[in-house]
Amino acid sequence: MSHNSFGKNFTVTSFGESHGENIGVIIDGCPSNVFIDREGIQFELNRRKPGQSKITTSRKETDEFQITSGIFNGKTTGAPICIVIPNQNANSKDYDHLSEVYRPSHADFTYEKKYGNRDFKGGGRSSARVTAGWVAAGAIAKQLLKSLCEIEIVGYVSQIYTVECNKSPDYSIDNIESSMVRCPAPKESQLMIEAIIKAKKEGDSLGGIVSTIIRNCPVGVGDPVFHKLNAQLAHAMFSINAVKGFQIGSGFDSIIKKGSELNDEWVSTANGPQTKTNNSGGIQGGISNGMPILFDVAFKPTATISKKQHTIDKSNNAIELEAYGRHDPCVVPRAVPIVEAMTALVLVDNLLP
Amino acid sequence: MSHNSFGKNFTVTSFGESHGENIGVIIDGCPSNVFIDREGIQFELNRRKPGQSKITTSRKETDEFQITSGIFNGKTTGAPICIVIPNQNANSKDYDHLSEVYRPSHADFTYEKKYGNRDFKGGGRSSARVTAGWVAAGAIAKQLLKSLCEIEIVGYVSQIYTVECNKSPDYSIDNIESSMVRCPAPKESQLMIEAIIKAKKEGDSLGGIVSTIIRNCPVGVGDPVFHKLNAQLAHAMFSINAVKGFQIGSGFDSIIKKGSELNDEWVSTANGPQTKTNNSGGIQGGISNGMPILFDVAFKPTATISKKQHTIDKSNNAIELEAYGRHDPCVVPRAVPIVEAMTALVLVDNLLP
Amino acid sequence: MSHNSFGKNFTVTSFGESHGENIGVIIDGCPSNVFIDREGIQFELNRRKPGQSKITTSRKETDEFQITSGIFNGKTTGAPICIVIPNQNANSKDYDHLSEVYRPSHADFTYEKKYGNRDFKGGGRSSARVTAGWVAAGAIAKQLLKSLCEIEIVGYVSQIYTVECNKSPDYSIDNIESSMVRCPAPKESQLMIEAIIKAKKEGDSLGGIVSTIIRNCPVGVGDPVFHKLNAQLAHAMFSINAVKGFQIGSGFDSIIKKGSELNDEWVSTANGPQTKTNNSGGIQGGISNGMPILFDVAFKPTATISKKQHTIDKSNNAIELEAYGRHDPCVVPRAVPIVEAMTALVLVDNLLP
Amino acid sequence: MSHNSFGKNFTVTSFGESHGENIGVIIDGCPSNVFIDREGIQFELNRRKPGQSKITTSRKETDEFQITSGIFNGKTTGAPICIVIPNQNANSKDYDHLSEVYRPSHADFTYEKKYGNRDFKGGGRSSARVTAGWVAAGAIAKQLLKSLCEIEIVGYVSQIYTVECNKSPDYSIDNIESSMVRCPAPKESQLMIEAIIKAKKEGDSLGGIVSTIIRNCPVGVGDPVFHKLNAQLAHAMFSINAVKGFQIGSGFDSIIKKGSELNDEWVSTANGPQTKTNNSGGIQGGISNGMPILFDVAFKPTATISKKQHTIDKSNNAIELEAYGRHDPCVVPRAVPIVEAMTALVLVDNLLP
Repeated sequence: MSHNSFGKNFTVTSFGESHGENIGVIIDGCPSNVFIDREGIQFELNRRKPGQSKITTSRKETDEFQITSGIFNGKTTGAPICIVIPNQNANSKDYDHLSEVYRPSHADFTYEKKYGNRDFKGGGRSSARVTAGWVAAGAIAKQLLKSLCEIEIVGYVSQIYTVECNKSPDYSIDNIESSMVRCPAPKESQLMIEAIIKAKKEGDSLGGIVSTIIRNCPVGVGDPVFHKLNAQLAHAMFSINAVKGFQIGSGFDSIIKKGSELNDEWVSTANGPQTKTNNSGGIQGGISNGMPILFDVAFKPTATISKKQHTIDKSNNAIELEAYGRHDPCVVPRAVPIVEAMTALVLVDNLLP
Repeated sequence: MSHNSFGKNFTVTSFGESHGENIGVIIDGCPSNVFIDREGIQFELNRRKPGQSKITTSRKETDEFQITSGIFNGKTTGAPICIVIPNQNANSKDYDHLSEVYRPSHADFTYEKKYGNRDFKGGGRSSARVTAGWVAAGAIAKQLLKSLCEIEIVGYVSQIYTVECNKSPDYSIDNIESSMVRCPAPKESQLMIEAIIKAKKEGDSLGGIVSTIIRNCPVGVGDPVFHKLNAQLAHAMFSINAVKGFQIGSGFDSIIKKGSELNDEWVSTANGPQTKTNNSGGIQGGISNGMPILFDVAFKPTATISKKQHTIDKSNNAIELEAYGRHDPCVVPRAVPIVEAMTALVLVDNLLP
Repeated sequence: MSHNSFGKNFTVTSFGESHGENIGVIIDGCPSNVFIDREGIQFELNRRKPGQSKITTSRKETDEFQITSGIFNGKTTGAPICIVIPNQNANSKDYDHLSEVYRPSHADFTYEKKYGNRDFKGGGRSSARVTAGWVAAGAIAKQLLKSLCEIEIVGYVSQIYTVECNKSPDYSIDNIESSMVRCPAPKESQLMIEAIIKAKKEGDSLGGIVSTIIRNCPVGVGDPVFHKLNAQLAHAMFSINAVKGFQIGSGFDSIIKKGSELNDEWVSTANGPQTKTNNSGGIQGGISNGMPILFDVAFKPTATISKKQHTIDKSNNAIELEAYGRHDPCVVPRAVPIVEAMTALVLVDNLLP
Repeated sequence: MSHNSFGKNFTVTSFGESHGENIGVIIDGCPSNVFIDREGIQFELNRRKPGQSKITTSRKETDEFQITSGIFNGKTTGAPICIVIPNQNANSKDYDHLSEVYRPSHADFTYEKKYGNRDFKGGGRSSARVTAGWVAAGAIAKQLLKSLCEIEIVGYVSQIYTVECNKSPDYSIDNIESSMVRCPAPKESQLMIEAIIKAKKEGDSLGGIVSTIIRNCPVGVGDPVFHKLNAQLAHAMFSINAVKGFQIGSGFDSIIKKGSELNDEWVSTANGPQTKTNNSGGIQGGISNGMPILFDVAFKPTATISKKQHTIDKSNNAIELEAYGRHDPCVVPRAVPIVEAMTALVLVDNLLP
């Protein structure tokens, strides 16, 4: 099993560690003769990068990328595209005292037991830093989807801690990006920011929900049975660090409705058959039905906090853990471009011939 | 992309349609020299089969299976195992008038658009009938997991419509199977049955949650990055018909807790390091940590109902749809063995060398 | 690794044993709405079936096939196609005394060591009987290739033992099929038949070469680097029992020519660029160049012979082996449709979108 | 389909072009906690590198490699290993006049038609330069195989043009490496060198055969049916540039023997069952039988020659081609480590759990 690759037609292979020389991806299967918009890639990386605002981690990375293969005279050649992003602001010394500690709700214990070793510097391979490569690959996927059929993928923060905004399939990326927390509802955006700042002051962390809208997905995307489009999306989302839940359309709330209330009746429209409601979230029998695809991804609060915690080390010593490394008080705003990138990778993998 | 196969080491290929001659699976990658307990397979098929109680569909299938290859003198040979389950009680005529109708929240429209045709009899390939083959394959996987490391997979119904029971990692399969609705809490079990019977009388349908416990999963199962154990489980669960949501451990409820409240602190125990709480649901960084693995799967109400519904056909004619086919008022109790089977397939795929 | 599947887009999963109930295949990835010509499938099975002439084994199988899924109203639905071919004339008793013997140049020893058991009846899974399923799948692939771009795959016997005929890209299937040994050159055909009959009388066996011509393959089929079209063809051919060698175009004879003699110069023609010679065998850099694709497959003499042989059994006892089972004195004529089928599977896997 | 990856358990993804910044590989699936011998990698790269002797191309590359991920404190971590090898001595200007020419027996035409573009500098992705990455990956695979079960892979040149040496399973790597042409038979080695120098003077090129011996391969490696060990080896070998033929054991010569002459009889020995002869080349039924694995790979003469050739360009103009780029008069000696590397990748992919 190829552990670090995603996708069968547009295959992204991820490599690199948080405090290594660089992190990156190889994209195999990108069509040839496609002009790659480098600014589009940098735009997405900037949305993900640390230090972008007062509510994110203070680690500073410019996240400037290099493409070292697969491009000739500005266009893709059909050969593998290698993208690398140097690691610049790694403070490895911050982690030396953690080399034998099992941090609560981190991957320290499981990595050590699985591999018999641990790259403890910045979390090594288990760090969300590696998702920068996915975002770069996803940016290329987005460009392909745009040109293939005007597909638009829009993620936004619909909940932080106890602050929820209304969900809607109509939010625009401008609304979303104008909010530091990537919540398109101004009032809730403000409350979310305040909640995050408060948590940061307390040395604590918060979780939340990224809701996603896929617009213009053609009918017929996805496989029946084992590789339903929703199954592929769920798989992709759970690949992201800190994800605890995924739901499509009416999701968990489907349970408290009866079939007669939940079923999406078909109606004839000028644009062809559409469903009156969209509890299906745009997917029926695992296949897109032409309606907007809607899903939610739940992120837990960042495991790294400054508050004192109790845990043990590999010699079973009790440890008091306090204020280590740099971290986000809430990863959810920075998770938006990662969710979008993984969504784009799923779609392009299904839509490329 | 192999659309109808699941798993890379223990690969299950599904075939057959609801009203065809049979449905079945090929299992490729089962170790050789393993004694197969046929009664164990039949036991699981009986848990899934239609007509097992007054709260399930009236379609009658004995779901007796045949193994036509891969077994020699009672043991596996290492060659592909072909299991077929004949279809006996298909009433295809019930579906003739539906051949051009897009039933609400069914796969009719999407299959027709994707494939340019539709096997409308009993839903053809999109029918949950095909999951009988998965349950047979999962039964073999369970036997392997049991012998490999005493892994036990226990699913139960924790919610039907508005009736919820307490979740616990300690329920036994006997408790669960003694309930017609597969809810181990006697009082809630009774309320759930009543709710289903009421919905049935109304010609309506209900959804619910299957909660699952994996016991004795060794530390180190799952891959980091793209093939986290939780991602594989999510993928597997969304392969099942009617699934709308998946969550691991504290799931969506993680959001309304702070990091300091949610983090699972490590403690030293006689059995080695364990976490004090299990909000992680037994998986950290995508890899099992030795604690019970806990997850929930949300099923929507059955799309087929007897109540009158409005929809259209492929010629855009408005249609009034009423009382067609035979169906379950609530699929959730029969979904328990399917959830368990898919769970077993994920685990065996990771644990086989 | 899925051990018994071939192809990524048009995936054929093989199952069954020589003396089991049946052998068969699942085809996953066949496009929907394709009319399947059942007589075309039977035609290919008849070319492969045992007992078709005096120079083949006396095992009698009608090799009538059943399609149990994936077809609705005569057309493919896009769902997996299950084809089964019953085993009718298995004389399992012929093999009882062989259950512990390691037959020379058979798979007895290796299967037993790999799997810790052996289905000794007719060779079980290692029997070339399983290729009947591949031929059925290949027949469907041929039908698709014909309709996609008039691709024609023509195999013929170019050598048996020391009798060789001229190779040519122009032989027709009628010429070939009019020869019992599938050699289109009448004189050599006769000599080959005589050589086989002589070997049969001696209780011995002969090998030979199947040469293959692919006509009308479009330019651009195949992948650079690891999955060159020639690499895929070589892989496919070595999947066939008794294959010892594979060469493309000028093959091994390339060595005794200099670059200046061997290079295929490009010339401009009314049909676009073509090469003056075709030492490349229609493939350059792993990708088809529009010229006929030409390759040869070497088959060793059948391992089963009637002549006395010395060997051992699993208890290290010396064994004299004589006259067991039924077998072909030369498999090469029956290998022609198998080579063509595997060729078709490779091409369709590359050409389907 | 992942076009640029090889292997399912030990997956090597290749990237880079002849005249790009670098070429490299990602290795995914290497076990953790393995000490990597960097000198062992450099040793293999040196065997492959250009400019190593008077019979190779004059392109000078030190082929010094960097490992940028997957290693922590000198040992593998289980994370993907990225190896890059900078391109230093690329003379891209040499190729400018070739940008629209279809060179005879090169991949120019097929790449251009497949991808709609061509990276003409040094052959871009179709250059054998990319095999440097495979050799680095293969060097790690060799180290693993050595430690797993003392497997030794020894390739040597058994034929150049019309000069052949005896084949033997007993040649040592020291004998082979002491020959500039990697032929262990001193007399034939000298004749081969002379033949190559003569061809070089004539502006021509020669082909030859690399014969390979795998020693100590355990019994049971390889899959029956579609993924026979010989099929995997054939696939791997045809992935290498300029390969025209592959044969295992007695190969094409099997044809001119009868079954009674060719069959490998089993005998009981102090080391367990062995075959008296080894015409099977160590593989029966697709599975290793414990005897040395023996196979031959035929390489055509280098397509690039200095002699005048006729061809056309993309506008159908007739072109006289002379003396372009730098090239090997015979690639076969440098192909030895590439053949060994691909062999190692096949074996490690089968032997890793």
